[in-house]
Amino acid sequence: MARPAAPAASQAHSAEPTTGPLTPEELQLAFRNRGMPLEAMRHELTPTGLHYLVIHWDIPDIVADGWRLPVGGLVVRPMVLTLDELRARPASTIPVTMECAGNGRARLDPRPLSIPWLTEAIGTAEWTGTPVWPLLEEAGIGPGAVEVVFHGADRGIQGEEEQAYARALTLDEARRPEVLLAYSMNGRPLEPQHGFPLRLIVPGWYGMTSVKWLTSIEVVDSPFQGFQQAVAYHYQQDADDPGTPVTRQEVRALMIPPGIPDFFTRHRLVDAGRLRLAGRAWSGVAPVIRVEVAVDGAWADAVLEAGLGPFAWRGWSFDWVATPGEHELACRATDAAGRVQPLDAPWNHQGMGVNHVQRVAVTVR
Amino acid sequence: MARPAAPAASQAHSAEPTTGPLTPEELQLAFRNRGMPLEAMRHELTPTGLHYLVIHWDIPDIVADGWRLPVGGLVVRPMVLTLDELRARPASTIPVTMECAGNGRARLDPRPLSIPWLTEAIGTAEWTGTPVWPLLEEAGIGPGAVEVVFHGADRGIQGEEEQAYARALTLDEARRPEVLLAYSMNGRPLEPQHGFPLRLIVPGWYGMTSVKWLTSIEVVDSPFQGFQQAVAYHYQQDADDPGTPVTRQEVRALMIPPGIPDFFTRHRLVDAGRLRLAGRAWSGVAPVIRVEVAVDGAWADAVLEAGLGPFAWRGWSFDWVATPGEHELACRATDAAGRVQPLDAPWNHQGMGVNHVQRVAVTVR
Repeated sequence: MARPAAPAASQAHSAEPTTGPLTPEELQLAFRNRGMPLEAMRHELTPTGLHYLVIHWDIPDIVADGWRLPVGGLVVRPMVLTLDELRARPASTIPVTMECAGNGRARLDPRPLSIPWLTEAIGTAEWTGTPVWPLLEEAGIGPGAVEVVFHGADRGIQGEEEQAYARALTLDEARRPEVLLAYSMNGRPLEPQHGFPLRLIVPGWYGMTSVKWLTSIEVVDSPFQGFQQAVAYHYQQDADDPGTPVTRQEVRALMIPPGIPDFFTRHRLVDAGRLRLAGRAWSGVAPVIRVEVAVDGAWADAVLEAGLGPFAWRGWSFDWVATPGEHELACRATDAAGRVQPLDAPWNHQGMGVNHVQRVAVTVR
Repeated sequence: MARPAAPAASQAHSAEPTTGPLTPEELQLAFRNRGMPLEAMRHELTPTGLHYLVIHWDIPDIVADGWRLPVGGLVVRPMVLTLDELRARPASTIPVTMECAGNGRARLDPRPLSIPWLTEAIGTAEWTGTPVWPLLEEAGIGPGAVEVVFHGADRGIQGEEEQAYARALTLDEARRPEVLLAYSMNGRPLEPQHGFPLRLIVPGWYGMTSVKWLTSIEVVDSPFQGFQQAVAYHYQQDADDPGTPVTRQEVRALMIPPGIPDFFTRHRLVDAGRLRLAGRAWSGVAPVIRVEVAVDGAWADAVLEAGLGPFAWRGWSFDWVATPGEHELACRATDAAGRVQPLDAPWNHQGMGVNHVQRVAVTVR
């Protein structure tokens, strides 16, 4: 459905990136879409109320009573499941590090106009749910099927198009045993903003794929052309570039800023002497095998912790003897696929996968 | 302790308000200090992960083991309490609407430089804890005592002064039975960002008074002169005005924006016909007795719900027959003390208590 004449710049993904100051629209999005304060990386599992949040439109108003999940489209035996039926199925609990594909966007110059993430669109939770593939097998995937579309309840306008949120997975991706229909986060029912009563969890991928507030699952015989699949979430060089789809998380390490901050600037003040720098690192492609820390540009290896599992971040630490003066700290991760974080932000038109190294300026006293 | 030469504008409360665009510092603060999306007002009790958050510096790293609360200063019998001892005391559970005193600040022109709240620094939770006054009576308040200082663990720099967060109450305020030392929010232990393991809750006051991450309670014989008491949180006309302290919440009504939003602008699209507008209203001074809704400037009474108790918001609703075209909706509350929300923002130097009516532009199709 097309929308009647939209006021002001309504197309986040077609408006041109800007070199101008932050706009009121971006501020609204910053307050609605919550970041995880980086000191929360001290928790291996992020407390539910600190996990990052993206809500494209409004949090839908869903009551559990009467909620049903139709599984249909190109299937032999269409099904309709209640929440109790989903909970009665075989369940997995998986720690998953999730990140918004737009994390770091506001570091770009020119700056794509959307949620102006700095570095905080992250979190790690334990998700409990039932794997999606056995359910699809029970429904019987029909001949010619190529993708599974996950439809969400959140509804609004983007790119001048009225839409409900939806994303698709290829059958190969949907087959992965860790792709869950999750009804629980950190041991409790989902809070409304995290997709109550049921959401998709696709470990290793950026967060846009883990559709919240599921309303139906649909098997289709051609690649899904919904806005969030075909237009948004692409690596593009400009508005005319068809680009390539965003999928798995780029490799990334982040540091808990040490010392104490100034309220307004967030500039850090650190006491001289030995201190332990710490943070977390992850990659959606392959295990993180190395984290390095740079003090004033000199890189050295950090110590890696074991981590919670194949889809969650690994802790790292680095002992530093801080000497009085101004210093710049940085960290970068390498994964087993040979991916290394770039020193400078990899610019693209939508501000996707911006995984360059984090830099933290500190004054040591 | 004074801080060595601070980089850039470090004094949130002494920097001059600006007519310029949003600054990178304000964006950082917007992502760290979480707002409650207004559609969450559909919940009478805000889910924990949707409640607004202010964290002046960093969330402190506190482990429950070994944590103790000293109660000292001008008392006859200084005490040191464990969390178990606090939990074993008589407990109250109270629904409390909390709001940041700076809510609405970014609507001012010129705009005070601090957290650039629009309208979302609110939330209502059920807090469980033990009243503070009986504890002070057990400790025995000494002669000459005038205030009780609540010290928090969060530490940083503000106004060029290194400090831990602290606020005081007069003995009269501390005597109120609803002033709690709270260890539970919405039936669960406090999450780290809400003050784990123990925080103060002062119903009816703006949030700055409800000190988080308590480290000690101190009875003093003169008015507390800490930065957060004597400098910050004042209604001032300019930097040289000593001003008056911020205390209780001003009267306020907010509306859940109807219809569906555009992703980037958040402009609302509403279907023509009858719909129910709804929201919440509260005042820290006296019960809300009236909420009015204006459609294109014509005010009419809304229907008020009973509410959860004397310190929590009341729901309201208003049936509207939406006709195609552009409309402006607004709402305003009146309390039993005769306070009415102003139509225009009441400007002050720190951007405190900015409670003018909310306006929501909608396109009806």
